[in-house]
Amino acid sequence: MTIVMSRFVTAEDAARIEGVLAGHWQKRRAAAEAFGEDYSRLWAAIERSAHGGKLLRPALVLCAYEELSVDAAPLRGAAVELAAAFELLHTAFLLHDDVIDNDFVRRGQSNLAGERFDEGVAAGLGAANAARWAQASAILAGDLLIHDAQSMVARLAVPEPVRLGLLDLLDAAVFASAAGELSDVGLSAGAVSPEVPAVLDMTRWKTAPYSFAAPLRAGAVLAGAPAELGLLLEQFGGLIGTAFQLRDDVLGVFGDEQLTGKSTIGDAREGKMTAMMAFARTTASWAELRLLIGPGGPGDIDRVRVLLVDSGALGYAERLIADLVAEALALLEQPLVPAGLRAELAELAHRAAVRVS
Amino acid sequence: MTIVMSRFVTAEDAARIEGVLAGHWQKRRAAAEAFGEDYSRLWAAIERSAHGGKLLRPALVLCAYEELSVDAAPLRGAAVELAAAFELLHTAFLLHDDVIDNDFVRRGQSNLAGERFDEGVAAGLGAANAARWAQASAILAGDLLIHDAQSMVARLAVPEPVRLGLLDLLDAAVFASAAGELSDVGLSAGAVSPEVPAVLDMTRWKTAPYSFAAPLRAGAVLAGAPAELGLLLEQFGGLIGTAFQLRDDVLGVFGDEQLTGKSTIGDAREGKMTAMMAFARTTASWAELRLLIGPGGPGDIDRVRVLLVDSGALGYAERLIADLVAEALALLEQPLVPAGLRAELAELAHRAAVRVS
Repeated sequence: MTIVMSRFVTAEDAARIEGVLAGHWQKRRAAAEAFGEDYSRLWAAIERSAHGGKLLRPALVLCAYEELSVDAAPLRGAAVELAAAFELLHTAFLLHDDVIDNDFVRRGQSNLAGERFDEGVAAGLGAANAARWAQASAILAGDLLIHDAQSMVARLAVPEPVRLGLLDLLDAAVFASAAGELSDVGLSAGAVSPEVPAVLDMTRWKTAPYSFAAPLRAGAVLAGAPAELGLLLEQFGGLIGTAFQLRDDVLGVFGDEQLTGKSTIGDAREGKMTAMMAFARTTASWAELRLLIGPGGPGDIDRVRVLLVDSGALGYAERLIADLVAEALALLEQPLVPAGLRAELAELAHRAAVRVS
Repeated sequence: MTIVMSRFVTAEDAARIEGVLAGHWQKRRAAAEAFGEDYSRLWAAIERSAHGGKLLRPALVLCAYEELSVDAAPLRGAAVELAAAFELLHTAFLLHDDVIDNDFVRRGQSNLAGERFDEGVAAGLGAANAARWAQASAILAGDLLIHDAQSMVARLAVPEPVRLGLLDLLDAAVFASAAGELSDVGLSAGAVSPEVPAVLDMTRWKTAPYSFAAPLRAGAVLAGAPAELGLLLEQFGGLIGTAFQLRDDVLGVFGDEQLTGKSTIGDAREGKMTAMMAFARTTASWAELRLLIGPGGPGDIDRVRVLLVDSGALGYAERLIADLVAEALALLEQPLVPAGLRAELAELAHRAAVRVS
């Protein structure tokens, strides 16, 4: 799932972020050489895992920082490093999310584990050993990036209160996101009962805190913005990030595969418990719907869609999205939000919630 | 595998370390409440995972710090936090090591994943879903502690150069240990060829850097000891930590189960590729030995022992241990090592290498 963020990442900012990341990979590759070929290959694979994203999280850090800092933007170097750290964290979460889901493919291509698996099989390992090697590699890769993300934040050359504030934000984001991931897998494994409130909690925790709320507030903290404004941005990010996730769920069933690059059968086949599905569960349509989703299914994705529409589940998700966006936009109207930032974030809210890809 | 560390952790120090950890768990439990019962249960399980260790790594931090700091030990509070951070890191590594090995038991008891698995089955989940829930929980638990360990170091109230030096040490330890774990699983999955040098590299990387070298040098850095002494301690830790791991491998086959609390069949059944086994692979005994180890085996652990003795593999491991200890003790003879620290570390070297449990 992608979001067109070109408005938010200028070519110049993207180059800066890529520059910091490139420096990081170079340092890691050089250090890995002392630990043999397999470790060097792992780091090369980690670097590939971090490529190809839209730099959403770094863009939000820089957007908030640039709009809120004084003209000279004296900490721009630190802002770019902070931005890059959020990208490392995101990559770590994707890696571990794939391990947890036992996925060997992401964005239509072999992910880090998939590459290792293929290599293992090609080298003559049995499937079980190749899978073990693949999953262990991905677990370690994610571990290293969770470490690296915080390492980057911990070393920022900024005044101590700012550094501690940023560490707090990172901490809260990691903490919330792990809670969300736990709920997500609990729902999918049947360990968590799929009531609407539980699914909404998961939807709020898993992505929005580390992808929207923390990056925006972190940019504000680095810019020295008033604490009240930082809190407002965090709140805005929570709302819009939840809308983003809900839109993701809707597109997972109703999206145009040509635009999303993602199968519209995958979510239904997984029986992914989204807010939309949790709502449908409370309706008369569930008796038929439940037979169409889950392993082996859906035989008829069009029928799944009809049932989600007729049950009111799609409408429910769309209303939630609209309400979240409205609430987020209302926050932006507060006078302490500078006009430039307001315009940027209103655009972000629109793109996060209304996008088709 | 335990090492009697009572000499190194005074009751007072142990209480201080436990106090920092208790404060950490309390903070996390309180924050988890906002994220539902499952997350609170996960944190309670994380806390249990961290209990019952011998506090080896914290003890080494404090040993180096206390022996090397000026009388007033002005940073003792920070030293205790640093010590606790190494315990969190250790717990994280154990959690992920168990995920990678698909182990649901540690020290004869259900580990975090094992507990979750049992709960899942009791709640009516199928075995596959219970296992998925269990492994995801353990992955997230390890992620959180990897984060928490560095978070604790990053927040130490110490001068900036000291803090950056400590972050560097933590970084190098995490980096090396991931390389070691990768090699370990590569050897066990057949992705890495089990030549003696490769197995020795794995043995050097996996445990010694984060368990011995980094804690000792970190204590020295915090005490403001000369850089040369810090490096010497790191080197000493690398040697003695490797000897510790080799002793662990020997005890894994030849140990007294009553004393080690660990089956002496487990390693052979896993076909664990230790330096001793890698050496045996190069001898005539391997033709028979290879049939006795691995899944299903060993039918005859006594015969495995005889072959390891007759092939010279046990002797090889014992010579390696003796050489490492001798080299480590020689380092301690350098005049820049204070007498008090020398005595402590000589005792440590002895216990790490000669222990029977």
